[in-house]
Amino acid sequence: MVTTNGFVCPLPLRRYPQIVMGHGSGGQMMQELIAHLFVPAFGEHALTDAAVLTLNGSLAENGRLAFTTDSFVVNPLFFPGGDIGSLAVHGTVNDLAVMGARPVALSAGFILEEGLSMDTLGQVVVSMAAAARAAGVEIVTGDTKVVERGHGDGLYINTTGLGLVPSGIEPNPRRLRPGDVLLVNGTLGDHGLAIMSVRAGLQFETDIVSDSAPLVSLIETMLDVCPEIHALRDLTRGGLAAAANEFAQAAQVGLVIEELAVPVQPAVMAACEMLGLDPLQVANEGKLLAAVPPEAVADVLAAMQAHPAGRQAAIIGRVTSNHPCTVAGITAIGSRRVIDVPAGALLPRIC
Amino acid sequence: MVTTNGFVCPLPLRRYPQIVMGHGSGGQMMQELIAHLFVPAFGEHALTDAAVLTLNGSLAENGRLAFTTDSFVVNPLFFPGGDIGSLAVHGTVNDLAVMGARPVALSAGFILEEGLSMDTLGQVVVSMAAAARAAGVEIVTGDTKVVERGHGDGLYINTTGLGLVPSGIEPNPRRLRPGDVLLVNGTLGDHGLAIMSVRAGLQFETDIVSDSAPLVSLIETMLDVCPEIHALRDLTRGGLAAAANEFAQAAQVGLVIEELAVPVQPAVMAACEMLGLDPLQVANEGKLLAAVPPEAVADVLAAMQAHPAGRQAAIIGRVTSNHPCTVAGITAIGSRRVIDVPAGALLPRIC
Repeated sequence: MVTTNGFVCPLPLRRYPQIVMGHGSGGQMMQELIAHLFVPAFGEHALTDAAVLTLNGSLAENGRLAFTTDSFVVNPLFFPGGDIGSLAVHGTVNDLAVMGARPVALSAGFILEEGLSMDTLGQVVVSMAAAARAAGVEIVTGDTKVVERGHGDGLYINTTGLGLVPSGIEPNPRRLRPGDVLLVNGTLGDHGLAIMSVRAGLQFETDIVSDSAPLVSLIETMLDVCPEIHALRDLTRGGLAAAANEFAQAAQVGLVIEELAVPVQPAVMAACEMLGLDPLQVANEGKLLAAVPPEAVADVLAAMQAHPAGRQAAIIGRVTSNHPCTVAGITAIGSRRVIDVPAGALLPRIC
Repeated sequence: MVTTNGFVCPLPLRRYPQIVMGHGSGGQMMQELIAHLFVPAFGEHALTDAAVLTLNGSLAENGRLAFTTDSFVVNPLFFPGGDIGSLAVHGTVNDLAVMGARPVALSAGFILEEGLSMDTLGQVVVSMAAAARAAGVEIVTGDTKVVERGHGDGLYINTTGLGLVPSGIEPNPRRLRPGDVLLVNGTLGDHGLAIMSVRAGLQFETDIVSDSAPLVSLIETMLDVCPEIHALRDLTRGGLAAAANEFAQAAQVGLVIEELAVPVQPAVMAACEMLGLDPLQVANEGKLLAAVPPEAVADVLAAMQAHPAGRQAAIIGRVTSNHPCTVAGITAIGSRRVIDVPAGALLPRIC
């Protein structure tokens, strides 16, 4: 009855230790779920279908809102370093943060499969609430649907995020310029390999733990040092390879990445070699790529390394006017290769 | 290759007549889906993970945003009068509209099941785009995930909506006062019975068609006539019974509903009797309940009846200080009954 993160199923919900269709019908059972599960975790907001947000004066001067959505179907629901609940918060606040926005509010839409254990749902909801608090954002509105057994996979979560973009902040891949320096905030591939290790029942010498984390505070720090940062992108599906290609195409420039400079944990590198994966294509959930004007690089790198979410930050490459729209990797032996967008399904249901 | 609503699968997508896992991997296949399906339907916005919205001056004076989310898992995907795509737009714009908000932007999150026909997806996306245009709202950001065969049901859609609440507009069930008059904008139960008829393979004498429709323009008209409307609610899951009970509880008042005054189509009434359903508990997707101060009722009713979405609008009851928190129905034979919130799963996956 007590889950690992301290969720204790409230008495009124114990009548149904598993989700049944009635929990999604809009009637009394759904109200019970909201009153005894969502409201204690997310606050009174969770009671209502919709929220009215009154924004403060800074919006009045500015009026720029960031708006982003993500559905989370990660399998398994719990993995080393996180779970679908915290991931659903981190994924969406990070999408807002890389636009330079301060997250203001999240919505949470649950699709539950009949038969899901109430304790599992409770544990995920408590984890979401904790992740939202840590990222400084409120979950202000929600929705619950239930589908029959065999038509879901435990639970899927959609989070949609709303943020405010301060004046003068406009990171956008189209603003990349030749000479810009490329940075990441730490080791790549941890999330993807953590998921793979559980899913495939693999044992590595060192435990690989997901990097799932909010980037909000790190990015605020970076923008404080250099409001002029040209572009930011979180390195989720498709990893660094996908984000770098997006940058190259958006600004019609070339990117050069020094592969030896890209931080990758030895255990992740070994696992990638074993599984035939390229760590540059593997998903992360707490990593970003930044394109910074050269004169600001030293300050931005120092600020990143002084922040808990950026201790292993590194310069990994630069922007060039050569080979527009193409990402070149300089390999360990000094040769060049094209780093392409991953083609198909490398690691399905990674987020 | 040409679907009923004119969707023609673009050549580059025909390599895969069905969704495969790679369409959700963040790589080239997902980019193709976005470029050849979502962008033609929703516009260039659909290319980006997140949107920056610049709001106009009226927000600056006011700063109230409405924010609401809904996931749609309706089964079947296509039904008389609509499909999951148009429903996903109507459901969310209606949630905004009943808060008095003007819809500004929607997000669209797709969870696709491996094996879903590309033509089906295309048809749904075209229908969503048309519904959004008709409701005067843009779909500005999206997300696509793919789950393995047997872990979904074709497709699920989350839409999250953002709206602006004009100054002086504040419909809220807490504002109900004894003496307020209750109105609906037309016949109840059509959506639920349309879904049931397809699902159960039932044939009724008259075809029952879903009422799925946007309420945005109707509500704007009503608020133009009477900005003081105390409360508005769309009558989705749980139907009129759920909304009326929500009103009664929010304001600690009683509601009296004259059951003979509630418009219900004869075919719907007959089908409800056959299936043992109460039409007051059945879901609608284009109907609302309004609580209007008595002095404004005549004007509001006339405005509703002059609007295409309110031709069959009717006064169905009133608010009383008697029996707080309870909804009383006056039956056809003049007796009273308690109209309760539906308990469990009447009609699963109705939206």
